[in-house]
Amino acid sequence: MLAITILGNNSAIPAFGRNPTAQLLQTQDASFLIDCGEGTQNQISKYKLRRSKISHIFISHLHGDHYFGLIGLLTSMSLLSRTQELHLFGPAKLEEIISLHLSVASVTLSYRLYFHALSGEGIIADTGKIEISCFQVQHRIDCWGFLFKEKKKPRSIIPEMVKSYEIPSAFYEQLQNGADYLTKKGTLIANESVTIEAAKPKSYAYCADTIYDPSLAEKIKGVDLVYHETTYLKDLENRAAERFHSTTIQAGEIAKLAGAKKLMIGHFSSKYESLEPFLTETKEVFENTVLAIEGSCYKI
Amino acid sequence: MLAITILGNNSAIPAFGRNPTAQLLQTQDASFLIDCGEGTQNQISKYKLRRSKISHIFISHLHGDHYFGLIGLLTSMSLLSRTQELHLFGPAKLEEIISLHLSVASVTLSYRLYFHALSGEGIIADTGKIEISCFQVQHRIDCWGFLFKEKKKPRSIIPEMVKSYEIPSAFYEQLQNGADYLTKKGTLIANESVTIEAAKPKSYAYCADTIYDPSLAEKIKGVDLVYHETTYLKDLENRAAERFHSTTIQAGEIAKLAGAKKLMIGHFSSKYESLEPFLTETKEVFENTVLAIEGSCYKI
Repeated sequence: MLAITILGNNSAIPAFGRNPTAQLLQTQDASFLIDCGEGTQNQISKYKLRRSKISHIFISHLHGDHYFGLIGLLTSMSLLSRTQELHLFGPAKLEEIISLHLSVASVTLSYRLYFHALSGEGIIADTGKIEISCFQVQHRIDCWGFLFKEKKKPRSIIPEMVKSYEIPSAFYEQLQNGADYLTKKGTLIANESVTIEAAKPKSYAYCADTIYDPSLAEKIKGVDLVYHETTYLKDLENRAAERFHSTTIQAGEIAKLAGAKKLMIGHFSSKYESLEPFLTETKEVFENTVLAIEGSCYKI
Repeated sequence: MLAITILGNNSAIPAFGRNPTAQLLQTQDASFLIDCGEGTQNQISKYKLRRSKISHIFISHLHGDHYFGLIGLLTSMSLLSRTQELHLFGPAKLEEIISLHLSVASVTLSYRLYFHALSGEGIIADTGKIEISCFQVQHRIDCWGFLFKEKKKPRSIIPEMVKSYEIPSAFYEQLQNGADYLTKKGTLIANESVTIEAAKPKSYAYCADTIYDPSLAEKIKGVDLVYHETTYLKDLENRAAERFHSTTIQAGEIAKLAGAKKLMIGHFSSKYESLEPFLTETKEVFENTVLAIEGSCYKI
C-alpha cells in the first residue's frame, strides 16, 4: 500500500490559503515526508496524520518553500519526546543549517537524527519493503527527485491447499518465493496451486522543482504515479524556462515519455487563484492527470 | 497611536489552533514586528495586516517558537520585490543563520536588511516618533525584552487663537515646544492660551520569555501596557522556574511592581486548551489584565 497526502501545493509565497510544498507518503509500516515548507507541522496536525510514524524525511533542495518548516518539525518532535530514530536526506548544507539552529537554542534532540547528504544518483535507503533512490533534476540550485519503489512482495500461501498437500511449514518461505514442492512420494506440486501472486509492487516518483528536461523520463520509466511540477500555465513557457520551472504541457510530456500510469501536478505559482486551468491544459497531453490538492490522499 | 495585534500566543509546540509567538506593534507611520514564530507570514496575511509597513523586526531570543518564521518572511518580502530597507534586531547569531539560509539558496534580497546585534541594555532605535530600548530578561538562553516609548509630542496650535493674536508662523514651532509669545507691544501671550497639550506619549513593554524576576519591574516602570508571559498556571510554579518561565500570579506581580497601567498575558503552554483560567488567576493579583488573543488588536 502506497498513498500520498498533499500538505502543500504552492510555489514560493503562500497564497489563496495554499501552503508551500510538502507531501506525506504513507506505506504499511512507516511514513516518508517529502519536502517540508513552512507550516508543515501544522498541516500534519490539521489533517490528523501521525508525525510519530514519520521515519524518513527527504528534502529535494534548499529553496525555502521546500524546507523552512523542517527545523520546526524536528524540534517539535523532540519537545514531544520522540525516541525513535529519524533519517533525513538532503543537500549537504542542510546538516549545517540544522546544527546551527540547534546550537543557538542549546537544544539536544530527544532522538537520533541521522543525516544523509545527497551526492550521487542511486539507491539511498531500503526499508525492507520500500527501496528509495534519488536522481538529479535541473533547477537553479542543486536539486533532487526521489523514486519510491515497493519491493517485490512474497506470494501468499493458500492455507487450505498447503494443508491438503501436507506441505511442512519449513517450506513456506520457499513457496512464497515461487518454488514448487516435491512430495515424499515424488509428486510435484506446482507453486501456483498453493500460492497466490502478491499485488504488483507500486512506485511513486517525486520530481521536485525542475525545468522541462526530457532526460528525466528515463529515470522514472514506467512509474505508477509521477509528481511533476507545473508552476505555470502553458502560455508562460518562457518564464518557466528562465526560472527553471515547468508548464502544464511540459509536465504532461514527461509523464507520456516516461510511460507513467498517472500524473499528479503541483507547485502552482502564487499568481494563479484557480487551479482548474492547470488540469485542463495538462490533460491535453496526458489524460490521467490529477491536481495535487491540499489534504487529499491519493492511493497508488 | 500605538496598537498591538497578536499573531501568535502559544509556547513551543503549536496547539489548539494557537500559533507560536509573534506580535505586530502598529504606530502612525510604521509597524514593528516583535518575534516571528513559524507561520507568522501567514498570520499577517490572515489578519490583513500590511507586511510592507513593517520597518523594524525585533527577535527576543533564538528559541524556535520565537523566530522560525523569520527567514520565510524575509524571503517572501524579497519575492514580493520589497525595496524599502528593513532593520532587524536580535541576538548576534541570528545574522549567521540568515546568511546561511540565503547563501544555500543563492538568494540576494531585493531590499537592504540591516542587522543590529543586541549586546547591551539601552536605546537601540529612534524613529523620530518612537524610541525603542532593549533590556535583558532571565531565560535559559540569551533573551531580550523591548520597550517602545512614544516620544513627547509637540503641543497643537489653536488656529483661531494664533490668528487673533497675530503670531507669525515663524514662531509656531516654538509655540509647539511650549514657549510663550511676546507681542511687539510687549504683551506676553501665555502658551496655554494658544496651544493644546498633545496626547500623553504611550509606552509598551514586551518582556519575552522570562523566569519570575522582580528586578524586571524597574526596567519597565510606569509603562502603559506590559506583555508578560504566563506559560503556566499558578500550581506549576516549580515547573515554571525549572524552565525559566512564569506563572499567572508572577506576571501579575511584575505588572503591580512596575506600576503598569495594563497587563497582557500570553505564551500559553500547549498543555492547556482553555485560556480562561489564566485570566482569572492573573486578575487575583492585577485586575487590569487581558489575554493575548490571536487576531485581536489592543489599542494602547
